[in-house]
Amino acid sequence: MKEVKIYAPATIANLVCGFDVLGLCLNEPSDIMHVKLLDEKKVAIHSADGYKLPLDPTQNTAGAPLLAMIEEADLQVGFDVTIEKHIKPGSGIGSSAASAAGAVVAANILLNHIFSKEDLVRFAMFGEKVASGVKHADNIAPCIYGGVTLIRSIFPLDIISIPAPLLYITAVHPQIEVRTSDAREILRKEVLLRDAIRQWGNIAGLVAGLMKNDYKLIGRSLEDVIIEPVRRMLIPGFDEVKKSSIKAGALGGGISGSGPSIFMLSRDNSTAKDVEKEMQSIYDKIGLTYRTYVTTINNEGITIIPEKKNKENQI
Amino acid sequence: MKEVKIYAPATIANLVCGFDVLGLCLNEPSDIMHVKLLDEKKVAIHSADGYKLPLDPTQNTAGAPLLAMIEEADLQVGFDVTIEKHIKPGSGIGSSAASAAGAVVAANILLNHIFSKEDLVRFAMFGEKVASGVKHADNIAPCIYGGVTLIRSIFPLDIISIPAPLLYITAVHPQIEVRTSDAREILRKEVLLRDAIRQWGNIAGLVAGLMKNDYKLIGRSLEDVIIEPVRRMLIPGFDEVKKSSIKAGALGGGISGSGPSIFMLSRDNSTAKDVEKEMQSIYDKIGLTYRTYVTTINNEGITIIPEKKNKENQI
Repeated sequence: MKEVKIYAPATIANLVCGFDVLGLCLNEPSDIMHVKLLDEKKVAIHSADGYKLPLDPTQNTAGAPLLAMIEEADLQVGFDVTIEKHIKPGSGIGSSAASAAGAVVAANILLNHIFSKEDLVRFAMFGEKVASGVKHADNIAPCIYGGVTLIRSIFPLDIISIPAPLLYITAVHPQIEVRTSDAREILRKEVLLRDAIRQWGNIAGLVAGLMKNDYKLIGRSLEDVIIEPVRRMLIPGFDEVKKSSIKAGALGGGISGSGPSIFMLSRDNSTAKDVEKEMQSIYDKIGLTYRTYVTTINNEGITIIPEKKNKENQI
Repeated sequence: MKEVKIYAPATIANLVCGFDVLGLCLNEPSDIMHVKLLDEKKVAIHSADGYKLPLDPTQNTAGAPLLAMIEEADLQVGFDVTIEKHIKPGSGIGSSAASAAGAVVAANILLNHIFSKEDLVRFAMFGEKVASGVKHADNIAPCIYGGVTLIRSIFPLDIISIPAPLLYITAVHPQIEVRTSDAREILRKEVLLRDAIRQWGNIAGLVAGLMKNDYKLIGRSLEDVIIEPVRRMLIPGFDEVKKSSIKAGALGGGISGSGPSIFMLSRDNSTAKDVEKEMQSIYDKIGLTYRTYVTTINNEGITIIPEKKNKENQI
């Protein structure tokens, strides 16, 4: 295979009580990436649409991971990458992770799967470093593995898939900018032991709830006493969205990644749609531009777009 | 029924990465408690063996929960409790919890099960308050529910049973005194966010490992970067026991509750026995008196001792 087109899906990091360690892959939205194998050691980046992406591969979230891959494995090939961005950068639903993970997964397909999923996560983290200054895997891991993932440790890398029941996700992206690096800087370096205990009780409850298909337990465990109380102030309408969503039947939810997107989990599609209406009405009232999504968990992660579909997309 | 005899088993709180929220019930050792229903509002406590227990029920870990139960439900009855202590007080394997939980479970049997398990945990916590000054449920909950329990929250009470695979537990009790209240005082009130993140990654990994029967993941997750680095200094030989046990094949382990007991989990009985030998040899060398146990998870919790066995015990 000389070229491949893939869907690189959006992801939700943190999942309220799992700051820096939990992530979930979404069925929508997805970037489309078209990657071609080159016979020279080179990485070229193109934007297929309006988004102004950094075209220098060392500064690009898709480019840096490919350069790391070429360097580490001493590959004598290169990659030409065209990105069709559907996940808005800065939205908090894993835009940079989709580019980084999508690039390395596509490259690995073209290289006949010489790298493991763990290797790919490791390479893709170079993209997150470019995007936010920090190597983190809580968007990359779910994007590559699909489903809900726990990143127990980054050094050494330890990724665990957490089985989950059918869940509907409603996300709203109020179109304000929250930089990941800013959202990180406002966090305190120390936290109360009492709060940390509450948080690890919640993450344990969330993992147990997901694995037991216990929706009520999932709902009760979606509580964040450490990060959300600080970051909620960066997102206009956050408290109202949360309150109204839960009133409309959502199990719970919170800030997606470092924001500004907010997500809510529901047990069925009609509740997820009701939650969407609440979100829309709140941001209409505030007068902020926004986008909403109602989707489900993507258990596959990054997928190849079949040839036929490729042609349709090219029309 | 006018009287009942029960086994009130030992428990291990914290389970390394689950400080204050996880606990596990052991098949050995167990206290034996003989509780009789009285037709007057009164609680009497007797020690069946040498242990000098406080006989004033308000100061006794079995008495205080019974008084709370009588008070809350406005019962017009009382209880006469005889305790045969096999779990040494101050050992760190839930001696006070066994008395507190055993008393209320036995009383509830005599009252025809008018209280839920949650009620019983709530009453039993009055015993922990007498013993250590703090209401905590990480020994009481596994003692009453059996198996591995998560106490996601105390107010309101939220107890979740975590299914676990067959595990062998080796515990050693070096006979020095570590007071729960002292072990609590030496902890810092604030912890690094970085360490807290590592800890909640570990507890999520441990819950997933237990529920997936993934022994290696259980082993990797048995890491405590917050409590153990402080408390290990209270227990002579701790580092050596841990190192030698893991070398002998244990999956991992750490301080049981607030110590001084140390526990290790193994996949099979022969490894658990090898671990016991290591522990014995270390404390023999140090010259400290100790007791060791090799046992399994008790999935029943507190159990009634059948009549026939009662008679045997009375001989």
